[in-house]
Amino acid sequence: MSALTLEAADRIAAAGRKAAAENGTAMNIAIVDGGGHLVYFSRMDQAWLGSIDLALKKAKTSVLFCMPSSVLGEMSQPGGPVYGIEWSNDGLVSFGGGLPLTAVDGSIVGAVGVSGGTAEQDVQIAQACVQAL
Amino acid sequence: MSALTLEAADRIAAAGRKAAAENGTAMNIAIVDGGGHLVYFSRMDQAWLGSIDLALKKAKTSVLFCMPSSVLGEMSQPGGPVYGIEWSNDGLVSFGGGLPLTAVDGSIVGAVGVSGGTAEQDVQIAQACVQAL
Amino acid sequence: MSALTLEAADRIAAAGRKAAAENGTAMNIAIVDGGGHLVYFSRMDQAWLGSIDLALKKAKTSVLFCMPSSVLGEMSQPGGPVYGIEWSNDGLVSFGGGLPLTAVDGSIVGAVGVSGGTAEQDVQIAQACVQAL
Amino acid sequence: MSALTLEAADRIAAAGRKAAAENGTAMNIAIVDGGGHLVYFSRMDQAWLGSIDLALKKAKTSVLFCMPSSVLGEMSQPGGPVYGIEWSNDGLVSFGGGLPLTAVDGSIVGAVGVSGGTAEQDVQIAQACVQAL
Repeated sequence: MSALTLEAADRIAAAGRKAAAENGTAMNIAIVDGGGHLVYFSRMDQAWLGSIDLALKKAKTSVLFCMPSSVLGEMSQPGGPVYGIEWSNDGLVSFGGGLPLTAVDGSIVGAVGVSGGTAEQDVQIAQACVQAL
Repeated sequence: MSALTLEAADRIAAAGRKAAAENGTAMNIAIVDGGGHLVYFSRMDQAWLGSIDLALKKAKTSVLFCMPSSVLGEMSQPGGPVYGIEWSNDGLVSFGGGLPLTAVDGSIVGAVGVSGGTAEQDVQIAQACVQAL
Repeated sequence: MSALTLEAADRIAAAGRKAAAENGTAMNIAIVDGGGHLVYFSRMDQAWLGSIDLALKKAKTSVLFCMPSSVLGEMSQPGGPVYGIEWSNDGLVSFGGGLPLTAVDGSIVGAVGVSGGTAEQDVQIAQACVQAL
Repeated sequence: MSALTLEAADRIAAAGRKAAAENGTAMNIAIVDGGGHLVYFSRMDQAWLGSIDLALKKAKTSVLFCMPSSVLGEMSQPGGPVYGIEWSNDGLVSFGGGLPLTAVDGSIVGAVGVSGGTAEQDVQIAQACVQAL
């Protein structure tokens, strides 16, 4: 698999922070590699402390299942096909804000997790991150 | 209780991988003994990393309660009799893909846990495993 | 990084079991990829239950620090430079039996962890595994 | 307490990476605030995966006890006054590489944790970080 460099992770997070600042939100941004290991993290001033772990777990969730965290969340609702999946893998987060990072060759090289605003805002910032790859 | 040998576990998993390959899916297959201890595990190339833990926990869940993991899941829905049971035993997984392994004398000698596709696909592969016992 | 295939892991473990059988020992053999994720596990009949986790953690320890688990153990003794490192990474095992798996190009593609005998026997079987790569 | 801004954390980590590059080492650098919550993390390319958690825990250890992690380690040796303290607080790391970050008014505003080389190298980079505050 292609490697996700710190240089790339730094650039991705900077794009996310820029978009967050334009929105007037304070975000936690976590970036993991293809094996789910942390490469980069930054917390903007005044961001919720509880969102640190959410950002970390959204990134992990997204890379472990190669999909946006919100897609997993659609399937994990009560009565859904994977209800309760959040208890696995030392804790997953299955709402919006986690997105895979995909290389030019189509391979998933990592994921970004964003938390600090509404789920909608988190998704928007995560998308800004992905576009910077 | 009858023992589950590595020879049997190996045969069970091979049957599951064969069925998965025919389906074009990449599965994680875990096999535990009657005490819930791991006997065998294999991850097919390209299988989701997040499904490793799901396969392990489905097998554990199934043997700990002597039932398919999906049966537990029917009872653990909101309002159900064992809602929240997934928090116990260091984490259970209560959707389909975990099945008990039953000896000729009817005793449960272990369980298999399969994860990597849809819940429906996982169940199908777990059934192929059970039939190989 | 190069990928560790299930075919290779299966071959590596078979070599370890063959060497263990010749020694009259019953071993747990765990194989992880370059990110520390489980690819393969087998427990030989009659192997200690407590050695399952040891094999898993030896493999993880070895790949996370790109060295034999025993080398880390030399440094983690009381008074040593990394005393207490075993408390990190959700638990490490720092005695012999974990060895990195190195590809032809020199990159570490995973690790093997062996447990079930004396530390000396475990190391011997792990070496038999590495030679089969 | 004074706040540790992301701007300051970013500057601190950059100084550490610069010193690490001059040494030819690849470091994980974690920075936490006065409450032990993560503000910033970066992993240099090729740094050990196992050192991610060490860097995080060194920073946490240092701020939780307002001292260099190595000072705690002197007291946690067998027979020492706080032997076994590493089991507390969801895991501490008590060898060198964690240092408090102290504001001009003498208050501790956070800590830095560095891991990736020898304990001696980690301490050197952590000192470069502290000097950048």
